[in-house]
Amino acid sequence: MGIPNLQVALDHSNLPSAIADVVAVGEVVDIIEVGTILCLQAGEEAVKCMRALYPKKTIVADTKCADAGGTVAKNCREAGADWMTVICCATIPTMKAAAKEVSEVQVELYGDWTYEQAQKWLDAGISQAIYHQSRDALLAGETWGEKDLSKVKKLIEMGFRVSVTGGLDVETLKLFEGVAVYTFITGRGITAAEDPKAAAQAFKDEIDRIWG
Amino acid sequence: MGIPNLQVALDHSNLPSAIADVVAVGEVVDIIEVGTILCLQAGEEAVKCMRALYPKKTIVADTKCADAGGTVAKNCREAGADWMTVICCATIPTMKAAAKEVSEVQVELYGDWTYEQAQKWLDAGISQAIYHQSRDALLAGETWGEKDLSKVKKLIEMGFRVSVTGGLDVETLKLFEGVAVYTFITGRGITAAEDPKAAAQAFKDEIDRIWG
Repeated sequence: MGIPNLQVALDHSNLPSAIADVVAVGEVVDIIEVGTILCLQAGEEAVKCMRALYPKKTIVADTKCADAGGTVAKNCREAGADWMTVICCATIPTMKAAAKEVSEVQVELYGDWTYEQAQKWLDAGISQAIYHQSRDALLAGETWGEKDLSKVKKLIEMGFRVSVTGGLDVETLKLFEGVAVYTFITGRGITAAEDPKAAAQAFKDEIDRIWG
Repeated sequence: MGIPNLQVALDHSNLPSAIADVVAVGEVVDIIEVGTILCLQAGEEAVKCMRALYPKKTIVADTKCADAGGTVAKNCREAGADWMTVICCATIPTMKAAAKEVSEVQVELYGDWTYEQAQKWLDAGISQAIYHQSRDALLAGETWGEKDLSKVKKLIEMGFRVSVTGGLDVETLKLFEGVAVYTFITGRGITAAEDPKAAAQAFKDEIDRIWG
């Protein structure tokens, strides 16, 4: 079982605050995500800034692309993104078109997706999925449970590299012990901490303790 | 039966070309859409420019929001958008959170949505839906047919105001004769025409001829 990556999600509503936060933790994390909110607010400038700041890190544009996959992906690549996300209800042609332009496409799982659909993504050559506790679901009081874990495990068994995200903190990580998670994604769990660099390092240390 | 609106979708990959195109047709159309591609490339600046250019037109930010509905919608409203779109696989809490911040939320229909889900959107107070021929599906050779029309009619019967989009041209409009379409959306059908203003007026004239 590999050691899971740590990904910081920058879900800021403006680029200056995202830059101010990322410089504290960018060297500690493995993957830097330009979150959807930031993509929609700052556009390609946000991806370009992250690429300029971190030429050797993996940069993901969390576009949650639903259509025009080829154009969105080409734009992401040209701005400097390695990976981008597509929403699970996008069509297979959209996903395939995106996959031609960027190094990797990740399917964001929201709503009532099925394993039959997931097999079609694999068949289309897309092998990363993001299992997401919806931010709004979390705000409505839902949290990680056995139901989530069994879905994550099933996706891994199918052949996906699975990222998990949504309300994660250092204490939550042990819930996933024994599960070959590919990447843990957290935003405010790092950026809103009193000491963001220490928070990122605490995530890394706990990942190493459990999976190292 | 009311007269359908005409909406121009600006799906440009950069803001200057979108501005150059919109000034030719903005006064002719009813609704100006900052398309997803443009949102992701130019961010909130794109919405702000359209609001500045057209203070009295309806401006829609086609965010296809899947999560963090409240934040995305607040950002859209603050930039000047009247409406925004959410993707159909977003959760109901996401849709409700968005609907609190903007005048209207429109559900973008992609993939395997169901009428049971659609009824939940109505129950949540969301009564605009966008029936979409996927751009990538169109590229793959699919087009408008009886299957699409019957879905559009069913949604209207349920109580939705339905926008239709994807590969529309002036000749396609008559396919919808007798159907109470709320809005016809076209992008390159107007902006890529030799004379975009004449193309927009031709859409308006044909809409008036059929529904007026």
